[in-house]
Amino acid sequence: MKKLGKQTIKFDNPPTILETASIVGPKELNGPLAKYFDKCLEDEFWGEKTWEKAESKIIKETVNTVIGKSGVPSDKIEYCFAGDLLNQCISSSFGLRELNIPFFGIFGACSTFVEGLSLAAVFAENGIENVLCAASSHFCSAEKQFRFPLELGNQRPQSAQWTVTGAGSAIVSKSGNGPYITHITTGKIVDMGIKDANNMGAAMAPAALSTLLTHFEDTGRKPSYYDAIITGDLGEVGKEILTELALGKGYNIKSNYNDCGCLIFDNKTQDTHSGGSGCGCCASVFSGYLFRQLRDKKLNRILLMATGALTNATSSQQGESIPGIAHAISIEL
Amino acid sequence: MKKLGKQTIKFDNPPTILETASIVGPKELNGPLAKYFDKCLEDEFWGEKTWEKAESKIIKETVNTVIGKSGVPSDKIEYCFAGDLLNQCISSSFGLRELNIPFFGIFGACSTFVEGLSLAAVFAENGIENVLCAASSHFCSAEKQFRFPLELGNQRPQSAQWTVTGAGSAIVSKSGNGPYITHITTGKIVDMGIKDANNMGAAMAPAALSTLLTHFEDTGRKPSYYDAIITGDLGEVGKEILTELALGKGYNIKSNYNDCGCLIFDNKTQDTHSGGSGCGCCASVFSGYLFRQLRDKKLNRILLMATGALTNATSSQQGESIPGIAHAISIEL
Repeated sequence: MKKLGKQTIKFDNPPTILETASIVGPKELNGPLAKYFDKCLEDEFWGEKTWEKAESKIIKETVNTVIGKSGVPSDKIEYCFAGDLLNQCISSSFGLRELNIPFFGIFGACSTFVEGLSLAAVFAENGIENVLCAASSHFCSAEKQFRFPLELGNQRPQSAQWTVTGAGSAIVSKSGNGPYITHITTGKIVDMGIKDANNMGAAMAPAALSTLLTHFEDTGRKPSYYDAIITGDLGEVGKEILTELALGKGYNIKSNYNDCGCLIFDNKTQDTHSGGSGCGCCASVFSGYLFRQLRDKKLNRILLMATGALTNATSSQQGESIPGIAHAISIEL
Repeated sequence: MKKLGKQTIKFDNPPTILETASIVGPKELNGPLAKYFDKCLEDEFWGEKTWEKAESKIIKETVNTVIGKSGVPSDKIEYCFAGDLLNQCISSSFGLRELNIPFFGIFGACSTFVEGLSLAAVFAENGIENVLCAASSHFCSAEKQFRFPLELGNQRPQSAQWTVTGAGSAIVSKSGNGPYITHITTGKIVDMGIKDANNMGAAMAPAALSTLLTHFEDTGRKPSYYDAIITGDLGEVGKEILTELALGKGYNIKSNYNDCGCLIFDNKTQDTHSGGSGCGCCASVFSGYLFRQLRDKKLNRILLMATGALTNATSSQQGESIPGIAHAISIEL
């Protein structure tokens, strides 16, 4: 691997994304991508007594599914990178405690899945055969933890996003026939002073812009190089802001840009307002939908850029703004 | 780098720990290691209005201190790995939001600092010049979040540990004159069913045993190879359990084994019961005390193994047990 510019690593022997899997919840079952997921649950509990336990089960079974589909024996998977939105990332640590694979816990809020793919790619490029990545979120556990009790039936402004119930998982391998992770552009923390916890898209868009511009500068590529530029998860509001900000900097991404939070729900009919969010949104949209598009050669080159809002409930109560971060990876056939 | 055995990576060109820094709180100022820290605070707030903001300031100033001491311009530091115990790791993301360095958030509970050093070493071995690591904890913010309001004056059983107020930070560099990170042994999640949140040492000791035995098996080394084997943070209770468990497996570590949680406080006179804990414990004890011992050649080879309890307040209330993890690194002159 070698460093390109300020924040990008280019891989000399790009690792392959060998296989992916995704499991999502009932709201996602009614969304436009339902047919791409390995499993859609009919309720938010999946037989568990609490939402937190259900989320752990979702990430556990998603990981079991990707291992099963890949045909790689689990003792040949050398490392795991995983994280989620729950306090102290308990969805991952409880869900994956029987995995028996060396484990690196990561936290990048909704950018976690691409953070994991980035680190996995560095490991695979440097001789590690197979690395597992996973991330999850759950609408009910997230609302309970970050916002209000669901029983309150609180109203949500139009800029609010809807946390995806779901998980995505991928196995990144040293060798294989692609799709390949060719570059990673790792984001810096960007805080433009947005304080509205119901407008995460606006809080994260400047971080997405920073990473996007840096990626183009570091690689010398232009937006048109990619069949698709996909953020996760700015939602409708953040997507529009990013499109405008990028145009102001001379990059027109209108024709090939979309966002996982805009893809996973029909935001007009599903009452999801600005769109999906949560670690599980980008993870499941990539692992379900985008990976199949790549494998079927409907997409040949994508820039996947996950964005995270690095905040919690206490910091909002203490009047803090919301720092954002965005991690990008180039995935090419 | 190359894989040794099941869980260990051996570095062909071992990265150097170029510099470290540590800032701790008032309780640590009265402990036996006070003279080794760069700064000891006189109160838990450091001029901030909340404990969370104070913790962010501690990690921020610790990072500024290590960058200043190292002489490396901050634009030559290519990546940062950092994490803490607060929900969604806000100490790191708020404290380091002005850092302007590509940022990977990590979570390994009290194992976070060694997780960061492990990942930094992989990056530095593979061509990245300088990588920053940091971790923090704060007694007051941790008690508030994980246990009871401090104002309650709740009693603590003798097996309870005392979260360290403090942060440690290190710069890991591709080239330098040591001390070198020669091996990393990454832990698996181990859950032996301990449910007592006031006995984290017992919950984490089996994970420490797993990583310790695996490290010896993977490297072919024996306990006597090391001048010191240092865990962080099993405390007095966990230290005794690990010593006994290791002896039962044929490894006698009695003569050269200690724990950061036993070193940072005088547990008999400081009312800290089983000893220190928290991401900041291992981070500050290594960055303050152990690094100087290595630099002064009082120690030549150490195995630093940080242990984490992957739990949160909700999981305890839901009757879950406490999974543990332990990450080890060999540091040699």
